[in-house]
Amino acid sequence: MIIVLNASATPEQIEKLKQELETYGCSVWPTYGQFQTILGIVGDTGKLDRDYLLSKMYVEKVLSVQEPYKKANRTFHPENTVINVGSQTIGGNKLAIIAGPCSVESREQIIGIAQDVKAAGAGFLRGGAFKPRSSPYSFQGMQAEGLELLKQAKQATGLPIVTEIMSISQLEQYHEDIDVIQIGARNMQNFDLLKAAGQLTKPILLKRGLSATIEELLMSAEYILAGGNENVILCERGIRTFETYTRNTLDLSAVLAIKKLSHLPVIVDPSHAAGLWWMVESLSKAAVAVGADGVIIEVHQDPSNAKCDGQQSIKPERFAALMNSLREIARIDNRTV
Amino acid sequence: MIIVLNASATPEQIEKLKQELETYGCSVWPTYGQFQTILGIVGDTGKLDRDYLLSKMYVEKVLSVQEPYKKANRTFHPENTVINVGSQTIGGNKLAIIAGPCSVESREQIIGIAQDVKAAGAGFLRGGAFKPRSSPYSFQGMQAEGLELLKQAKQATGLPIVTEIMSISQLEQYHEDIDVIQIGARNMQNFDLLKAAGQLTKPILLKRGLSATIEELLMSAEYILAGGNENVILCERGIRTFETYTRNTLDLSAVLAIKKLSHLPVIVDPSHAAGLWWMVESLSKAAVAVGADGVIIEVHQDPSNAKCDGQQSIKPERFAALMNSLREIARIDNRTV
Amino acid sequence: MIIVLNASATPEQIEKLKQELETYGCSVWPTYGQFQTILGIVGDTGKLDRDYLLSKMYVEKVLSVQEPYKKANRTFHPENTVINVGSQTIGGNKLAIIAGPCSVESREQIIGIAQDVKAAGAGFLRGGAFKPRSSPYSFQGMQAEGLELLKQAKQATGLPIVTEIMSISQLEQYHEDIDVIQIGARNMQNFDLLKAAGQLTKPILLKRGLSATIEELLMSAEYILAGGNENVILCERGIRTFETYTRNTLDLSAVLAIKKLSHLPVIVDPSHAAGLWWMVESLSKAAVAVGADGVIIEVHQDPSNAKCDGQQSIKPERFAALMNSLREIARIDNRTV
Amino acid sequence: MIIVLNASATPEQIEKLKQELETYGCSVWPTYGQFQTILGIVGDTGKLDRDYLLSKMYVEKVLSVQEPYKKANRTFHPENTVINVGSQTIGGNKLAIIAGPCSVESREQIIGIAQDVKAAGAGFLRGGAFKPRSSPYSFQGMQAEGLELLKQAKQATGLPIVTEIMSISQLEQYHEDIDVIQIGARNMQNFDLLKAAGQLTKPILLKRGLSATIEELLMSAEYILAGGNENVILCERGIRTFETYTRNTLDLSAVLAIKKLSHLPVIVDPSHAAGLWWMVESLSKAAVAVGADGVIIEVHQDPSNAKCDGQQSIKPERFAALMNSLREIARIDNRTV
Repeated sequence: MIIVLNASATPEQIEKLKQELETYGCSVWPTYGQFQTILGIVGDTGKLDRDYLLSKMYVEKVLSVQEPYKKANRTFHPENTVINVGSQTIGGNKLAIIAGPCSVESREQIIGIAQDVKAAGAGFLRGGAFKPRSSPYSFQGMQAEGLELLKQAKQATGLPIVTEIMSISQLEQYHEDIDVIQIGARNMQNFDLLKAAGQLTKPILLKRGLSATIEELLMSAEYILAGGNENVILCERGIRTFETYTRNTLDLSAVLAIKKLSHLPVIVDPSHAAGLWWMVESLSKAAVAVGADGVIIEVHQDPSNAKCDGQQSIKPERFAALMNSLREIARIDNRTV
Repeated sequence: MIIVLNASATPEQIEKLKQELETYGCSVWPTYGQFQTILGIVGDTGKLDRDYLLSKMYVEKVLSVQEPYKKANRTFHPENTVINVGSQTIGGNKLAIIAGPCSVESREQIIGIAQDVKAAGAGFLRGGAFKPRSSPYSFQGMQAEGLELLKQAKQATGLPIVTEIMSISQLEQYHEDIDVIQIGARNMQNFDLLKAAGQLTKPILLKRGLSATIEELLMSAEYILAGGNENVILCERGIRTFETYTRNTLDLSAVLAIKKLSHLPVIVDPSHAAGLWWMVESLSKAAVAVGADGVIIEVHQDPSNAKCDGQQSIKPERFAALMNSLREIARIDNRTV
Repeated sequence: MIIVLNASATPEQIEKLKQELETYGCSVWPTYGQFQTILGIVGDTGKLDRDYLLSKMYVEKVLSVQEPYKKANRTFHPENTVINVGSQTIGGNKLAIIAGPCSVESREQIIGIAQDVKAAGAGFLRGGAFKPRSSPYSFQGMQAEGLELLKQAKQATGLPIVTEIMSISQLEQYHEDIDVIQIGARNMQNFDLLKAAGQLTKPILLKRGLSATIEELLMSAEYILAGGNENVILCERGIRTFETYTRNTLDLSAVLAIKKLSHLPVIVDPSHAAGLWWMVESLSKAAVAVGADGVIIEVHQDPSNAKCDGQQSIKPERFAALMNSLREIARIDNRTV
Repeated sequence: MIIVLNASATPEQIEKLKQELETYGCSVWPTYGQFQTILGIVGDTGKLDRDYLLSKMYVEKVLSVQEPYKKANRTFHPENTVINVGSQTIGGNKLAIIAGPCSVESREQIIGIAQDVKAAGAGFLRGGAFKPRSSPYSFQGMQAEGLELLKQAKQATGLPIVTEIMSISQLEQYHEDIDVIQIGARNMQNFDLLKAAGQLTKPILLKRGLSATIEELLMSAEYILAGGNENVILCERGIRTFETYTRNTLDLSAVLAIKKLSHLPVIVDPSHAAGLWWMVESLSKAAVAVGADGVIIEVHQDPSNAKCDGQQSIKPERFAALMNSLREIARIDNRTV
């Protein structure tokens, strides 16, 4: 950590600050310039509070040198984390392909789609039972009944279930039924929910918030890891920018950044990023080409009658064709699908 | 609502869509252009789902003419909502001035600050007991004990308490102790929490999310109103932009937009927006000049030793001087402080 | 175009507006709702001014149905534009690979790199002679001398030259020496420069502005096309967002949007988008996978001694390896490099 | 400046870098941590190139401690710059009120408005002769004829003229006719134009670009100052964000930041920021309350027939009423209008 002091800082204040920092086990290396004094701090700076330092009127800037996350940090955990889900893995040499409808609508629908995406080569079934909707008047999902149907689809196909939960009470009630528990973009900084997820051992798929920086996403992962649950999968799903042609702007460079900064697996959700079905295939190919550990794709047999997100869902036959392209791109990097 | 159909739409598809829309009680007025057909839809378009329409391949665009929120909408509720909190009001001719520390730290601290801000003319006491922090390693607030101290400060000064809750369980446990329940920016789209808040009658201070549009903020308010709780106060607290000099970018035009679109009161939080104590006074003055119904300001007796957000807190004596300026600005619009 | 009138609009005002719109050759189809009147306008709405309409106090919203650009619009020009540059093409089945240093530094440097990238399979040589720098104290390029060296590199290798000009006077003086004239992101809305470029026949590589929407980029292309120059190539090079890990956020969905909205070719600049050399290869692969017509990549033999942008340049040997990967990805879509 | 080296840096590389930095007259103070080495650099770090340093593979981060602008920097020029324009000043105790139409449309129009705004107390006349428009098909201003009419309005009222030029050739041809030369948001990084403006002595009103950071705005001012022209006025006019209700998001905290970082005067343009006439008055009041040195406001006698920007113009009578409010707010800070 670097602390920049302005010209008003007196030698006494500098000495006092130095001593205070040393009580945290840090060592302090000052550099004296004409207009500023720079303190270089090494040691366990994680205990130092940036805002606390900034509240002193003679402190001009506080610059972080080390990332504020520990357990998610690749520096201290150089090898990739590979997460086991039943017979599948996420983060290894084989891509995780997660596919299914936005929301569970009926037994026939979810089992039909599950069979289709399995036949095409998907490794996981997605489907929403509890749906976060920006309008209180929109369809909020089939709730517990939807989860029951997901379980039936799992029984029918063997595909592990990936589904979102939205609250601690849902987490407590349903975590055993779900193979990969999704925490959605809107809940990325619902810290109580993250803490509760940290108490489980189930894999958690943590989506990047609409306006979350990569560092904030990793700090949210740190909440789960700090609780003891090491099975965290991150998901880039588009960020909010000034461009409104797409629902969000898919940030594929985030995949590269996250893989450099952290050992956790990262997948990409092109369906929610674009919000436009005709972009999903090309963006999926780009996601695999850039090096993501997998993709999560909305597939529906009849998008124009889907109860939600039909505009961003592709049909099973297009999904099957896409799988062939993804397989070829993966092969270039010696990966499989 | 306007639905724009592309050239591929057949007369049969248009007729079928028209009939379907009419089953929702809407009437449909088509306009035929060379490259597009435009359907003007009037009636209760709130039941129509934009995404559902967009999933049809012959639909090019869906443009909203009416706002998707009803109970928060000024069109159907032209007069300002004024909310009563004890002997105070929010939304009327008198500005709501809410002041206090970022977090409750001790009995002496919170009672001392409460007495200071009361003496300066504040109408409400703020103070955090449950703190949402981006790092799991940061101080998370005094929790229940902090709330207890807030109640003692209320007893000592008579100031109603404004404090944040972060989860449904906290809401259930503590709502009776709190005069104005704050739902923070990170929970603005925690829909289950909004629904629970809708079941209460206590005033809810709903903060705009970091990257929430004005319409999304009003939709979140709608969740609370739809549940039956009409006591919602909105708060502009800065949005995330590319500019990093300030923590967030205070969007004062949002105050004007919200007051045009909705009847709900709107206050401004300059402390969290700027994240810099030396900006707080000037931004507070601007907030009152632009027409906000109040401000919420962080005040601390010893900012450089505050346990959180000291860098954005002002001292009680500066707060008292600021109150005088706010009083003069309010007087220009025939308002009081 | 759709004009939404609020409740205050009188029948006389509506009739007068209708007549005024008809004088522009448009026909007007009104829809009467309870709170609003909606006017659907068809015909040549390009002459109608959105802001003029909004200045009427009874007009609530003006919604565009048609895109405001004509010559750049795929609706009126369904087939792809393919641009010839010497024996090379941009926009066809063969990808345009443009490579070279950020800036020309010496005869040896530019000829050496030109030979290297040609050997690896690049079709065009890039290199800056006139450099836009945010600091007046930074290296501003070798100017005319740099252009001279580019010409020598072209002679030595046969590679056509792609280089930026920054002003009308440079355009007038040097356009004959350049094969593809680049207009940079900062000049995307330098309308006088765009008009001057419209008077030429030389291909123009127009880069998307840091905060330009896709529509604004196409409107800037329209300035060039409207002047008579149909040889416009668009370039996605990252947009400014809240994320600061990368210099800008590469928006690969923009490639898909532009190809749907327009017939013009689109290439991608991963070097400027990321600003980090170790991301360039993966992002290039993603750009080809998503369907871009080419990439423009910074290559330098000694990045740590480059006079500018060394941090985002890759070495010739890595570029050669990348070309092999791009070739394999292109083959999946039946394209060549 | 702080340079953070990663674990791969060898003692030889560190020593070599240290020596290289010292050749620039800087001194280097190393701090050795477990995973990183931190180099504190003091002296004239303005000559060091951030990107050059980042291109070395053992350099992890480069953090700036000092601002990259010198002449615009308040550190080296603590007192406020006050700019004289005829008998008026900008940057002193008296607010600069600049008012007039978006564009000059006729002799009657511009003289009429000039007389009205003068009567209400404005100190400067604005009006566009050369108009930057995003569509090539929109009205582009009356050009030279418009400038002629502005001069007649100046003769009739004595108000100095503030008007935009868009290119070097216009600057050369017309700079003597203009009292304050505006460089618009889209040209904020047209560096050749900035350099040309630096050769004049006429005051330059430099508008912040749509997506320019405060530092970039000050760097663009530095281009003008470095050329020798010290008469630079900055203007906050809204930035591009995800919020689309207003045309741009007015960033009033930027006024405070700029006044802290620089000695140059700062004014605010609420008309272009909001793009909505009914917000202009309230935002003007907020701009004065926050401490801006003035405002620039669009006034038109018949906004619904204005040739451009009628939707954001207010009528002369409203402008006169607004002046009274601004006067009262200014008085609170002992300023005049």
